[in-house]
Amino acid sequence: MAFSDEQLSRLALSAAFEPGDESIGGLVAEFGAIELIDRLRIESSEHDLSRFGRRWQSRDWLQDAVAELDQAADQGVEIISPGTPGWPTQLDDLHERAPLVLRKKGPLNLRQAASRSVGVVGARAATQYGIWVAEEMCAQLASEGWCVISGGAMGIDAASHRGALALAGPTVAVSAAGANLAVPASNHSLFARLFTEGAVISEVPLGANPNRRRFLVRNRVIAALAPVVVVVEAALRSGALSTMREADAMGRILCAVPGPTTSALSAGCNELIRNGGAMLVRNADDVIGEVLRASDSPECFAQSTESINLFEQRVIDLCAVRSVSVAHIAQGVGVSVDACTATLHLLERSGLVVRTVKGWRATNKAHR
Amino acid sequence: MAFSDEQLSRLALSAAFEPGDESIGGLVAEFGAIELIDRLRIESSEHDLSRFGRRWQSRDWLQDAVAELDQAADQGVEIISPGTPGWPTQLDDLHERAPLVLRKKGPLNLRQAASRSVGVVGARAATQYGIWVAEEMCAQLASEGWCVISGGAMGIDAASHRGALALAGPTVAVSAAGANLAVPASNHSLFARLFTEGAVISEVPLGANPNRRRFLVRNRVIAALAPVVVVVEAALRSGALSTMREADAMGRILCAVPGPTTSALSAGCNELIRNGGAMLVRNADDVIGEVLRASDSPECFAQSTESINLFEQRVIDLCAVRSVSVAHIAQGVGVSVDACTATLHLLERSGLVVRTVKGWRATNKAHR
Repeated sequence: MAFSDEQLSRLALSAAFEPGDESIGGLVAEFGAIELIDRLRIESSEHDLSRFGRRWQSRDWLQDAVAELDQAADQGVEIISPGTPGWPTQLDDLHERAPLVLRKKGPLNLRQAASRSVGVVGARAATQYGIWVAEEMCAQLASEGWCVISGGAMGIDAASHRGALALAGPTVAVSAAGANLAVPASNHSLFARLFTEGAVISEVPLGANPNRRRFLVRNRVIAALAPVVVVVEAALRSGALSTMREADAMGRILCAVPGPTTSALSAGCNELIRNGGAMLVRNADDVIGEVLRASDSPECFAQSTESINLFEQRVIDLCAVRSVSVAHIAQGVGVSVDACTATLHLLERSGLVVRTVKGWRATNKAHR
Repeated sequence: MAFSDEQLSRLALSAAFEPGDESIGGLVAEFGAIELIDRLRIESSEHDLSRFGRRWQSRDWLQDAVAELDQAADQGVEIISPGTPGWPTQLDDLHERAPLVLRKKGPLNLRQAASRSVGVVGARAATQYGIWVAEEMCAQLASEGWCVISGGAMGIDAASHRGALALAGPTVAVSAAGANLAVPASNHSLFARLFTEGAVISEVPLGANPNRRRFLVRNRVIAALAPVVVVVEAALRSGALSTMREADAMGRILCAVPGPTTSALSAGCNELIRNGGAMLVRNADDVIGEVLRASDSPECFAQSTESINLFEQRVIDLCAVRSVSVAHIAQGVGVSVDACTATLHLLERSGLVVRTVKGWRATNKAHR
């Protein structure tokens, strides 16, 4: 894989400095990674640079980055950064807080998966109710071609990935540890499946351990990747709610699963619904319905021709020759009419299908 | 008790014709009860009158009404009709569908109780979760001086009345049977307490049995009496939801308790919250909060000086001598600041308290 000096410099900077640091992100945006490293090499009088310079000069980070590249190649880990084909442009919504690079272990094309995805978050110490809802919702999302993005943690995260994998659906874990590690260890078998059938992505170097800060800043990546984020179970003042706040700040669609008012683990969800911070959703259909309603708001999606997934291609194929009804297409791809309509609206916005008197038809652009 | 001919005529008409009949209500509004009976006595060519005339002429309803008056006196049952002091004017919002009269058994002043009340509805076949929430919510409402109005049925209704009675709070059952009967029989001990500590009210004659139609039209009375109606547990297409629709049509505040998406008995509640038909509430504080938010909408309340309850009197007493803070009053009466503020707003609208720099102070009107 051709890897530019700029990308190698980003990889080195991402190891030297903790992820989500706006100052470093701002400096990379201002100077580019290569020039920033040149400036960090010399003792500088500028306050910010001298602070970061000491850290940079404490170690040969570029040599470490070269070693990580080798390790990545050995372990089938892909390094993704802005400009590489797999980079999901939704991450640009994080501006200075966007990851400098991502390490990805697993076959899934992250950019394609993220273009039609749902972020699912929730408590680690989830109840059986939450676990059941997350599994069921994510299995249904998977069956309708939506990628489930979660955090790979115990509880709701693990149930969400499991639900998607159960129906061979795409799913991505955004890890706070190195992308080649199974953390927490209790999710070892889940990570084994994500490595071979989905993807584990991370901003921190291969082999790196997570810490409290890394768990927190990881949340912003989940929030950025998906156009919609669902919280299944969450206590008041929980990590899951902080993810929802991140998602809200980026204009994502927020959904929450209600629960008993007697359950502390539904308190965060019920509170969000009550104060208008999230839409009440009961299942995948409701979530897809929210996307459908919002599909006229272009900022929620960064759909482009190159990011069509297999599901969307099947939808296009079904209306490639002549105009057909939504019901016909839905039956052909085996999803609900609502889900199919949502997909058609997305494809319409990309100019790949058009509405006709008889239903929908693929455009010339789709035939290229 | 002085009982006018008009009231006796209404009592007779209410026995001859099923409650909630718009045609009869319209005719009473047009002619008055006495003149309507005069017209029903003669064979009339007017379509509506001839239909009702046959029913009227089938029996000596006025004699029955006199007998019911005697029975009411024997059993301590009060007959309330428009114009009598205990008539809650909120019922006028039902227009032609307003009850012609109400029979009331129990010590509670209905007009006073309704002026600061919460309607609580829900499934007969409630879950333990719903029962617990209803009891807890209604106990708290009672402790803060709110009357709980429900239907006297099993499940959520019974739990609501029990919760209120547990804290010696005011509570009213709107029965589909005669007000002197305990229906269903399984709620016998509950009705015994309502007869002596609260009130059972009904539109149908003493001793009358309920039927499907009477259960349905009873719901509109619950919806009309309270400024806010809470559904605790309800299946889709349930009687509780029909009460909510009645309440909505009258501009009442609608609240719903969320529940697991896996519970059929929370499906109606979750659906209402999801489609914006009701506000999510978790407890009595949330319900009171909704009233507080809506308290600038005067149509929700028909508060008048005569309908001050003991709780409100205690609030007034605490700020009778000098201006005091809400926190001070709340502590004095033993309720939350939110609940106390709600009460103060209601009293302010009645001109009984005013806001001052230092908090609140009772007006001269309150000292009368």
